[in-house]
Amino acid sequence: MTKIRLDPHVTAYPMPVCLVGAKVKGKPNFMAVAWFSKVNSEPPMMMVSLANVQYTAEGIKENGVFSINFPGKGLVSETDFCGLVSGRKADKSHVFKVYYGELKNAPMINECPICFELKLRETIELTDARVFVGEIIAAYADEEYMTDGKVDIPGTEQFLLIESPTYQYLELGPQFAKAFDVGNKFLK
Amino acid sequence: MTKIRLDPHVTAYPMPVCLVGAKVKGKPNFMAVAWFSKVNSEPPMMMVSLANVQYTAEGIKENGVFSINFPGKGLVSETDFCGLVSGRKADKSHVFKVYYGELKNAPMINECPICFELKLRETIELTDARVFVGEIIAAYADEEYMTDGKVDIPGTEQFLLIESPTYQYLELGPQFAKAFDVGNKFLK
Repeated sequence: MTKIRLDPHVTAYPMPVCLVGAKVKGKPNFMAVAWFSKVNSEPPMMMVSLANVQYTAEGIKENGVFSINFPGKGLVSETDFCGLVSGRKADKSHVFKVYYGELKNAPMINECPICFELKLRETIELTDARVFVGEIIAAYADEEYMTDGKVDIPGTEQFLLIESPTYQYLELGPQFAKAFDVGNKFLK
Repeated sequence: MTKIRLDPHVTAYPMPVCLVGAKVKGKPNFMAVAWFSKVNSEPPMMMVSLANVQYTAEGIKENGVFSINFPGKGLVSETDFCGLVSGRKADKSHVFKVYYGELKNAPMINECPICFELKLRETIELTDARVFVGEIIAAYADEEYMTDGKVDIPGTEQFLLIESPTYQYLELGPQFAKAFDVGNKFLK
């Protein structure tokens, strides 16, 4: 196979999309983010990377808490809007219906099927972005996605982002293999 | 909408899957990882989170370099295997055909349509995992996915993991909206 060098700035994989929520100057603000990940098991922690210029970053620093909200595909326009426009230029506190949980000060999105509340644990300064690591204090799902106490994640119809060069939102596709199972055939 | 509390340990979103490569004790080793993200733009950086017990983590510390390789769905069994079995118990150096690039010591996977070479920049110790932040030094794509110097990311047929409770690998679905565009309708 011939290998071609790419510009190393390319983000060459499909990314799930979340909305990071924080109060900034007393008002809820939400920002679309695709640079995030789970990072620790016990206690459970997630990270989000925000460019240094982001308004939401000010709110996380100010309050020490934030939320991660997972939109379904029916919220794609609202989500995209929250990625296009800074809270510095537009008041995004009315885009969604907001609710609060255990942390009292981490705004969550009622319309999102799955939401997490996080308490800031670590901040790592890189060169043009800052990684916020938060401990998940509580998680919520809409009742309609719950069966026997388990959440149906594909049923929430979360979606994916392909950044440069094509800038697309993709739906989730069907299951094609069983995880932590299909590789067993290589075990002798 | 009625909100139900979930166990906060649930990883409630679809995750892209990569294979992290490092030499451990002189041999290439690969591990399936879904806890990773882009984290910085200039220079481009990515992070991977590895549990403290991981064999691959020893190789990253030892060499200060690693690779991130994106498999297509045709490699799902090999990828799953690399998540099921530790390099401590099985020699995974022969699962794939290995190649090297600019860093000389970060093993990449010939069968993966997209591969990155990274130089370790930061290590963040959490409680049961360690976050490795690497600078992307070079990126490669198979020639067949390139058109006019641009890579066709959906064409590489990368796949997604849903962890607990259903443990599924999902295909990518079709495009349903244009990113950084569909939200413009909210701009007045």
